[in-house]
Amino acid sequence: MRNFADFAETTITRKQLYQGKIIDVALDDVQLPDGGTSKRELVFHAGGVGIIALTPENKMVFVRQFRKPLEKVILEIPAGKIDPGENDHPEVTGKRELEEETGYTCSSMTHIASMYLSPGFSNEMMHIYQANNIKKTDNPKSQDEDELLELYELTLDEAEQAIKDQTICDAKTVYAINWWKLLLAQRSV
Amino acid sequence: MRNFADFAETTITRKQLYQGKIIDVALDDVQLPDGGTSKRELVFHAGGVGIIALTPENKMVFVRQFRKPLEKVILEIPAGKIDPGENDHPEVTGKRELEEETGYTCSSMTHIASMYLSPGFSNEMMHIYQANNIKKTDNPKSQDEDELLELYELTLDEAEQAIKDQTICDAKTVYAINWWKLLLAQRSV
Repeated sequence: MRNFADFAETTITRKQLYQGKIIDVALDDVQLPDGGTSKRELVFHAGGVGIIALTPENKMVFVRQFRKPLEKVILEIPAGKIDPGENDHPEVTGKRELEEETGYTCSSMTHIASMYLSPGFSNEMMHIYQANNIKKTDNPKSQDEDELLELYELTLDEAEQAIKDQTICDAKTVYAINWWKLLLAQRSV
Repeated sequence: MRNFADFAETTITRKQLYQGKIIDVALDDVQLPDGGTSKRELVFHAGGVGIIALTPENKMVFVRQFRKPLEKVILEIPAGKIDPGENDHPEVTGKRELEEETGYTCSSMTHIASMYLSPGFSNEMMHIYQANNIKKTDNPKSQDEDELLELYELTLDEAEQAIKDQTICDAKTVYAINWWKLLLAQRSV
């Protein structure tokens, strides 16, 4: 197994291209381990939290929303971006987003997985948490002003059908459903 | 269930911020369905293909490489970006990347899944294919000049351990391993 130093690309110069609300974009000139040079296009993102929420009826909670990059309405697990100050506590993001997006609160959050979504150009990490003992609240935190969401609760069969017909087509949501399927498969052993 | 029109955000103006080799970046002013306005930061990407390649010894093929956005060396399934002209044939991308990155060829590719990785700001879609009947070739296509890769072949147990110790930490690779686990679980029923 080769060492880190055999692989590492060192930054010669970094050019900031854009600093936005959700992403920062930069272009690096890098020195390759063999002495050559190349360019790396980079998107920096604070990371997000996706929430697996199962109801007492053993349905999973989803939100339906418009996604501008796709120009489509899709079904996803509740999720949101980590706000400044929440870096060390993604479960705080998770609780907030669950309540804002679905009106459910939970007793606690269990960490399930953390994954880079697109490590070729982005450092965005998606943390997946399970919300325990979810309960409808009478006074939910209000949604973000510019987010219109519709709530859905699906059985595993319905969720798998939604993957087949591409209503569910994003990585964190497919992950959540596979996690659920494996959980039930293990329980039935 | 509400209609598409109830959700759709229409573009008022689009500002191109960057046009690169891997990504294009734009900022949209949008009109929300309720009449309000907002901004959407957008990253456009041609999409990628990730390859599930199982050896006759029932090990999965991985590549270890440095990822500049993470400043880390990680283990991933072989994968690559869809080139111009390959849009309707991601399996062509898959065969090329498998051979370039691992020196394996295959008899055919089976489509497993297609997922948006980060639909909040990006249209990047990852297509997952299984490579059938992989075989080491004597004269592999050469790797991209600016990519240094190290080949690994792991059992399911080893791959799950690599997820636990975060050597494997990206969404497409975790998806591939869960898919493999479900496949073996179904076979053993």
